[in-house]
Formats: sequence, structure tokens, C-alpha cells
Amino acid sequence: MAPVVPYPPPPDIDKYLPSPQHTGKFFLTLTYATSLDSHLSIPLTQFPLSGPETKSLTHHLRTFHDAILVGVGTAVVDDPGLNSRLPGTPLTRQPRPVILDPAFRWGVTRESRVVQTAKRGEGLAPYVFVRSEVEIDGDERRGILEEVGGKVVVIETLGKRRWSWDVLSEKMRAFGLNSVMVEGGGGVINDLLAEGNLPHVDSVIVTVAPTYLGQGGVNVSPSAVLSTADGKRTSAVKFRDVEWRILGRDAVMFAQPDL
Amino acid sequence: MAPVVPYPPPPDIDKYLPSPQHTGKFFLTLTYATSLDSHLSIPLTQFPLSGPETKSLTHHLRTFHDAILVGVGTAVVDDPGLNSRLPGTPLTRQPRPVILDPAFRWGVTRESRVVQTAKRGEGLAPYVFVRSEVEIDGDERRGILEEVGGKVVVIETLGKRRWSWDVLSEKMRAFGLNSVMVEGGGGVINDLLAEGNLPHVDSVIVTVAPTYLGQGGVNVSPSAVLSTADGKRTSAVKFRDVEWRILGRDAVMFAQPDL
Repeated sequence: MAPVVPYPPPPDIDKYLPSPQHTGKFFLTLTYATSLDSHLSIPLTQFPLSGPETKSLTHHLRTFHDAILVGVGTAVVDDPGLNSRLPGTPLTRQPRPVILDPAFRWGVTRESRVVQTAKRGEGLAPYVFVRSEVEIDGDERRGILEEVGGKVVVIETLGKRRWSWDVLSEKMRAFGLNSVMVEGGGGVINDLLAEGNLPHVDSVIVTVAPTYLGQGGVNVSPSAVLSTADGKRTSAVKFRDVEWRILGRDAVMFAQPDL
Repeated sequence: MAPVVPYPPPPDIDKYLPSPQHTGKFFLTLTYATSLDSHLSIPLTQFPLSGPETKSLTHHLRTFHDAILVGVGTAVVDDPGLNSRLPGTPLTRQPRPVILDPAFRWGVTRESRVVQTAKRGEGLAPYVFVRSEVEIDGDERRGILEEVGGKVVVIETLGKRRWSWDVLSEKMRAFGLNSVMVEGGGGVINDLLAEGNLPHVDSVIVTVAPTYLGQGGVNVSPSAVLSTADGKRTSAVKFRDVEWRILGRDAVMFAQPDL
């Protein structure tokens, strides 16, 4: 993969990022790029949604976090590198890829991009989080991950596909990963925006690209929420400290959930 | 209704608006406010989506157009005034309300806000566009509209609920309405963003409010589009001349469809 063309990150975004003051507290940044109709992608198509400026921002943000987390769907469909491709990024600033894969269905091989990236020393090897019911002894994918410094991590889940973000963040902290950038896919994003999980989100950074992808893609929209005051529906997620930055053709919202 | 607190309109947006140079050509501006998850509203709830700065922008934009168009659903649910409530707006700068109501189901009365607004001289009386199969002779709503200077306009449609934007724009031009601001609701917006109708749209102005409304509302998302090159799905609507403006807590996209 070609290096990313670097653009300067937008000014005054420190409060949306993990910082030394947060030491001891786990910090979760939820970030993704979406179309005007809140779709992440077109099925079976690689469609470049955001522009080079916001792509550069994403790779900057990755260097500010200890870990980068995606769901298994993203790993399968995109075969992502999960590193920062900004030129000159040292390995010490590379985030640890964490892949949420309850049933361990990711067909990781020595040719997977994230494995190749780790092998070349351009990123860290992935940790794959699977539910404790999955048999991993003797699975050759485990060997492939361990060869490059990765591992399979067995954790307790809330069900076959649901995660406890308490458990996830505790596990990451146990590995010295005190900040995580969650990039997708749709299932993970909608799960974090759900009422009960939102307290785990410290910061939300959403790129809005000036296009409509059209119906039938992966849609970001949390479940409906009822007001505790009158039982009627209300906004599902509110924000405080909202700031927008214009980057090229895209608008990027920086905000903190207002719980 | 209270007057709108005026904020200065954002700079350099002339090319997204009808102007003297457009004389002779019909000009259609599509504009609406949406949540991050591309919902216009929460069912059965009046939820203030955009902030005072973008509300002021909307009322500025209304004074730049000959007509303001909404679907019947919006007329029924919101009972809107369909005028500019910027203080000091002369009647000559008020847009003509046009309501698309194929089956003439809008229960307009003398108490309807748009009728009251016209009666007070704070806006123009509405034109209601109904399909030619609808019987309007002797309908008392017709009398109510005509009392304040409005009318029922019978036009040809493509079916029970579908409009020909060719016919609509021709009809408006025949009334001296050479520019129209289309504000909603969801059905009308999605119809205009459909592949075949997009050539009728000169300008798109979308306010993105920093909130998620959650699933189950009126969603803006056009139908999927297949690329003529390879038959695969592609972006449903692309834009050129994209510019964003930050207004308070909202981001506003100004753009022209790239056909």
C-alpha cells in the first residue's frame, strides 16, 4: 500500500484525543466516515468515500491511540492494514490492531495485509478477541498470528455476538492499551452508539462526505431512545462540545457524547 | 409565531442561489436539515434539529426564491407557515407556498397557519397542486384558499402519487414562479434525489445537525444507482462545487449535483 499523503491535522482538537491527563483512565474514540445518507459503504464495492485530507486525519489519529479496533466483518471485507501509513511513523507510534471476532471466523493467513504489515515492521501484529467458547488450540491461524507477535485473546461475551465494553476495555488495559480508536464496521459503531454503551465513548469523530451512497448499504443509526421525562421518543445520541472542521470536500464533526 | 432571530447569511453562497442571470431558466434549490443518521424527524415528536443560525439561513433562503414547495405530509404534520419570518421581510420578498397534494388530502381550514399568515399579510397564500382526477368543484377548502389569494391547481401526474418535475416546473413558470426552494418532506426529497429527477435540481443545501435521531424516523436516502460503465453499484448522487459552512453547532453543505 502506498504511503498516505500527509496534510496537517486540523487545529484545536486535543480535547477529543487521549492525552497524558487521561492516563489511568481508558479512552475510547469512535471514528468513521459516512455519506450524507449515513451509509458506510456500498455492498461488494470499494468506493472511496472521503477525500485525501480526511484520510490523512485518520492516519494521524491512529498514531495518537494505543489500539485500533474493528469488527470481524471489516477485517474480512476490507483486508485492512490497521496501521498508520503516514510517512515516517515509528513503530512505537503504531496502534495495536484489535479485531472483535466472537466466532473466530476471520480467515487470517500469512498473506493478510495486517500480517504482512507487521512482518515488514510497519505496524503491530493483531490481537483477535474471540469468545471463550471458541476452541483455539491447534488452530493454525493462531500460529500465524503468534509468528508476527500477535495473539488470540479469549474473553467473556454477553452472548454469541454481543460484547461487554466493560470487559473489552478491561482486557485492553491489561495489555497496556489505554486508548482505542474504534473505526468500524457498522455493527460495532451502532453497538457503541446504543444507549447502554454510550458511556464507554469519550469522543466521536465523524467525517461526512458530500455524496449519497443510496439505499442498501451499511447504515449507521442507533436504536430509538425514549425520554425518561415523558416516555416519548427523543434524540438517540446528543453531543456536547461540538466542533466542525472542513477538510477538503469533507466536513468532520468532533464531539463528546452528552449523557 | 415569533420572528426568527437574524444571523448574517454565510459568505460566498451566491452560486447556489437563483440570480438575475438565471432569468428565463427555472431554478430549483433542494434544502433540508438532517441528523447524522440522515433522519428528518422523530415520528409524532417536534424535535428541534438545527440551531438558530441555520434556522435564520433557511428564512434568508426563502426570500431568495419565488416559491417554497413541500409535500402534503409536511403540511399535515407541521402546519407550517411557509413564509420568511425574518423581521422586516416585505411581502414582495415572500415566497409563494406550493403544496404537492395529489389526492387533495390536506385539511386546510381558516385556522391553518399558512392561511392565517397570508391573512395577516406576512406571507403569500398557498397554491395546492392536485392531480387532475381529483374533484375540486364545490370543495369548501378551495374557497378558503381563494379568500386569501390562494388556489387549487389541477395538473397531470405520472400516477397516483408520482409527479413529473417537468410538468411541475412548467406549471410554476406559467405562474411567474421561476425559482423554487424545496424543503421536504422525505418523500419529495428522495423523489428529487432519484436518478431520473436529479437533472431538475440546480442546487443542494443540506444542514447536518450534530445528533443521532435513531432508527424509525423519516430517512433521506435515494434509491441505489448502478454504474453505466460496469453495471456495479456506485454513488447514487455525486456533487461538484462542494462548499461547507459552519453555522453554530451545525455544518451546512452547499453543492450542485454532478450529473
